[in-house]
Amino acid sequence: MATFTHRTPVMFQHCDPAGIVFYPRYFEMINAVVETFFDRALDWSFATLHGSERMGVPMGRIDANFHAASRLGDVLDWSLTIGRIGRGSAEIEITGACGAEARLSVRGTLVLVDLDKMKSRPWPEARRAALERYTKENTA
Amino acid sequence: MATFTHRTPVMFQHCDPAGIVFYPRYFEMINAVVETFFDRALDWSFATLHGSERMGVPMGRIDANFHAASRLGDVLDWSLTIGRIGRGSAEIEITGACGAEARLSVRGTLVLVDLDKMKSRPWPEARRAALERYTKENTA
Amino acid sequence: MATFTHRTPVMFQHCDPAGIVFYPRYFEMINAVVETFFDRALDWSFATLHGSERMGVPMGRIDANFHAASRLGDVLDWSLTIGRIGRGSAEIEITGACGAEARLSVRGTLVLVDLDKMKSRPWPEARRAALERYTKENTA
Amino acid sequence: MATFTHRTPVMFQHCDPAGIVFYPRYFEMINAVVETFFDRALDWSFATLHGSERMGVPMGRIDANFHAASRLGDVLDWSLTIGRIGRGSAEIEITGACGAEARLSVRGTLVLVDLDKMKSRPWPEARRAALERYTKENTA
Repeated sequence: MATFTHRTPVMFQHCDPAGIVFYPRYFEMINAVVETFFDRALDWSFATLHGSERMGVPMGRIDANFHAASRLGDVLDWSLTIGRIGRGSAEIEITGACGAEARLSVRGTLVLVDLDKMKSRPWPEARRAALERYTKENTA
Repeated sequence: MATFTHRTPVMFQHCDPAGIVFYPRYFEMINAVVETFFDRALDWSFATLHGSERMGVPMGRIDANFHAASRLGDVLDWSLTIGRIGRGSAEIEITGACGAEARLSVRGTLVLVDLDKMKSRPWPEARRAALERYTKENTA
Repeated sequence: MATFTHRTPVMFQHCDPAGIVFYPRYFEMINAVVETFFDRALDWSFATLHGSERMGVPMGRIDANFHAASRLGDVLDWSLTIGRIGRGSAEIEITGACGAEARLSVRGTLVLVDLDKMKSRPWPEARRAALERYTKENTA
Repeated sequence: MATFTHRTPVMFQHCDPAGIVFYPRYFEMINAVVETFFDRALDWSFATLHGSERMGVPMGRIDANFHAASRLGDVLDWSLTIGRIGRGSAEIEITGACGAEARLSVRGTLVLVDLDKMKSRPWPEARRAALERYTKENTA
C-alpha cells in the first residue's frame, strides 16, 4: 500500500486562546493535505481541477476524532490513504501525529463534481488509476 | 424539547473559488453556534469559561454530513440540541438549513476540560441542569 | 454626513494564544463591514456583485493602526465613511471601538474591477450616487 | 544587508469566489513570514516567545499595497527586511512576488509586549542584535 505523507508545522494562526489548535484550522490543514496529495500523487493540481477543468472535490461527509491537543510549535505528520473508490467518489483516511503521539484521525468522502452543474461525475480513468495506488488493498 | 436556534448569513469570507462555502468555514460557524448557545442558553460566556474559570469545551469527535452546497448570500438557520450528557462531556447535534433545504448535519462530542491540566472535568451541577433543558428526552 | 455603523462580537475564532484578536481576523471583520455596507447602504449585495454582475471590489491599499487590543467577549462598534471617490475607486475609512475606547483605524482604497478582465471599471452612476451619501463632504 | 526570504504556495483555502487571494489571507501569510523569520533568523520561536517568555509581537500598524492579484497555484516569494529599530519596536518591510511580478508590499511596526501586563517592553539585547543584521543600513 502506498501512503501519502505530508508535514505541517503548527503556527500561531492555527491556535486558539487555550494555546491549542482550534479544530476548524485542522480542517484547513486537512484540505491542504488533500490538495497536496492531488497535486503530487495524482499530478492533478487544484488550479487545473478548478480552473480549466471546472471540477471540484468537496467533502460529502467527514468524521474526525481528536485524540490529543496540538500546540504552537508542534510538527504534525499526516498520512493519507484511500478507501473504497466509487464511480465519482472516494473514501479518504487521514491521520495526524506529532512524533509517536496520534493527534487526530479523519475519515471523509470526496465527491468529484462538475462545478457548472454542481452534479457528481465519474473519475476520469487515469485519475482513478492513480487514486487506486493509494488504496489499502494495494501493496506498492 | 428545547431547541436552540441561530442564524448565519453566508459571507464572502466563507466561500471558496467554486463560489460555495469552504467546509472548514462551516466548522467556524458551528463553533460560533456552540459559543452563542453557551452564552445565551447556558448563560456561560466563553470569555468567562476560558478566562476566569480556565476551562474549555473542545470537540472530542465531530461527524459532519454535507447534503447540499451553500452559496454567497444564503442565510443558514441552525438548530442545536443536546444528546447524551456524560460526566464531563455532552453529545451535540446541529443542523444547518437554508429555507426548507437541509445543508449539513453535524454530531459532535463536547468535552469539558481544565485548561491548566488539559484534563476532563465534570460539569458544574447548574451548568449540567441548563444543558439538560436542551436534550431530546425533555419536552420544554 | 451619513456614517454606516455595524457591530461585531469578538468570538473565540478571532482570538490568538495571547487571548486577543489576531490581526488577520480584523481584516475579515473589516471585509464583512464593507460587504454589509454594500448590501444595506448601497443595496448592492456581494452575491449580485460577484454573481450576475461579475464584478468585485478588492482593496488596492489598506492601512491599519491598532490602538489597543480586543479580547474575547468584547463588542466592536464599527463606523464607515467614504472619502474621495474616483472614477472606479473609493477611499474608505473605518474605525472600530469597544465602548469609548478606539481599537483600530483603517483607511483603504476599494477598486471596482471587472472579474473576467481583472481590470478597473467605472462606478455605475446610481451606485456612485449612493456612495456619495456616505462621504464626509456630505451632511445627511 | 541580509534579507530573509520565504515561499508560500497559494492554496485553495486562500482564495475567494473571484478565484484570487482574499486579502485577509495575505495577512495570515505575512504573520507566518514574520513567525518563520523569528524562528529561523532570530532563533526565537513563537512557542518560546508566547509560551515560557510570555511575550508577543503584535502589529502596531500595518500598511499594505496590493499591486496585482494572486491566483490558486501561484507561488509567492517573500522578502523581509527590518527598518528602524526602536526601544521595543521594529519597522518591518515585506514584499511578496510571483516570479518577476510584484504582488504586494507591506510595511508594519512590530511591538514587543509583555503579555501579562499588555505593555511594551524593550528588546532583549541579543534579540536586538539579531534583528539588526536584517536592517537596510547593514551589509551582510
